[in-house]
Amino acid sequence: MKKEPVILITNDDGIMAPGLAVLVEIMKDFGKVIVVAPDSPQSAQGHALTISAPLRLNKVERFEGIESYECSGTPVDCVKIAKSVILKGRKADLCVSGINHGSNAALNVIYSGTVSAAMEASLEEINSIGFSLCDFSMQADFEPFRPYIREIVTHVLDKGMGNTRLLNVNFPRIPSEDIKGLRICRQANAKWVEEFVEGKDPHGGTYYWLSGEFVNFDKGTDTDIWALDNGYISIVPVHHDLTNYQAMDSLQDLVITEVEL
Amino acid sequence: MKKEPVILITNDDGIMAPGLAVLVEIMKDFGKVIVVAPDSPQSAQGHALTISAPLRLNKVERFEGIESYECSGTPVDCVKIAKSVILKGRKADLCVSGINHGSNAALNVIYSGTVSAAMEASLEEINSIGFSLCDFSMQADFEPFRPYIREIVTHVLDKGMGNTRLLNVNFPRIPSEDIKGLRICRQANAKWVEEFVEGKDPHGGTYYWLSGEFVNFDKGTDTDIWALDNGYISIVPVHHDLTNYQAMDSLQDLVITEVEL
Repeated sequence: MKKEPVILITNDDGIMAPGLAVLVEIMKDFGKVIVVAPDSPQSAQGHALTISAPLRLNKVERFEGIESYECSGTPVDCVKIAKSVILKGRKADLCVSGINHGSNAALNVIYSGTVSAAMEASLEEINSIGFSLCDFSMQADFEPFRPYIREIVTHVLDKGMGNTRLLNVNFPRIPSEDIKGLRICRQANAKWVEEFVEGKDPHGGTYYWLSGEFVNFDKGTDTDIWALDNGYISIVPVHHDLTNYQAMDSLQDLVITEVEL
Repeated sequence: MKKEPVILITNDDGIMAPGLAVLVEIMKDFGKVIVVAPDSPQSAQGHALTISAPLRLNKVERFEGIESYECSGTPVDCVKIAKSVILKGRKADLCVSGINHGSNAALNVIYSGTVSAAMEASLEEINSIGFSLCDFSMQADFEPFRPYIREIVTHVLDKGMGNTRLLNVNFPRIPSEDIKGLRICRQANAKWVEEFVEGKDPHGGTYYWLSGEFVNFDKGTDTDIWALDNGYISIVPVHHDLTNYQAMDSLQDLVITEVEL
């Protein structure tokens, strides 16, 4: 008999986020689910981790029949502590993160706690998926995307994920009948163009609060943003090697000392 | 007359870190320096940014004759607020981050506040450099590396940085006479293999504190870790496109709906 897969679930919106509850409900049909999520919202925490302070980990009754924990750290901390303290080195078969309330397409990926958590698991050679819906509302409607999550997870558990360990999946904010399907994409060159709103606090102190608008600088039809804008669910295979290989030759004149290997 | 370059300096060890002071002292010979650094240590903050809370920004007298600010946010917040609030959209000619107390080579790059701050500037098409010394001590000796920082900065200001916008520079912890020179490298597959130390706080509560050891899984002689272990200063050109292009074809069978373009 095939062993039941161990599935680690986390997110960055915190243990109480509706998107997490939907994901847990879907995933419990696929194996033994363990939830380790931040005890408070941790959006835009990127790959932050906690080294100069201790972490707290509490077992909680959040999802019926599901082993669940809240952790005082970042999404990446949650994955690390799940591995070491909860699974005690036993490797999960899959890590899913989300469903995030808000897009993690394009350059959002580098700020995303959701995808960073999944990336942390992928560094441990665990197949990992970040799921996000392009709707920041806490009342976002995740229903149309359940069958697609099932499809993707079934595929990954049965056949793996090709030459990658991490998928960044984003759902467009559209009704079921308008979804055209899945599309493998590259990360678009699109990002938040920001400014700070200046204000005065009740004590007269000046504060600055980040604001902005999302701008697509990328005309490609092979990007995640194009896919989402055209009714597709975008899937970007993600890796963690940030080396800009194409630039290596162009930098050789920066090397002062010639090296004999 | 050539216009004096505007140089933005930040770090993740905070406004009081000795490494920042060394970098400011070096950089003031190259142009108009503006310092915006976190008001407290922000190591391992990765690309975290602050969206659900306001930021504070205070002008401080920290370096003689240098316009300096401390910011309550992350390193990435510092770069964003420098751009919008201090430079008011005027583009810096160079952003340097560091000198970090501790290595940002190999996979450390994805957790690094130092490199993430420089990456944030690179997203604005500003040439950016993260400098780190492989010595976590606050008493680390940065002296041997001053001439190399001068060389790199001179080169970048005069000739640019080839096809990239971001360099991750790491210095080995060795005496001057043992430094063999600079080396253009790829990011090694090397990382912290971690565990949590469990303890009891004074009130009897259980805490978990991250610990671990750095392990190199990469036998290549073209990596930053090899360079550092063999007496070189490592320079990795870094980019922010996390797409795993090589995996895209291998995922096509995941696409349920065939798409006619």
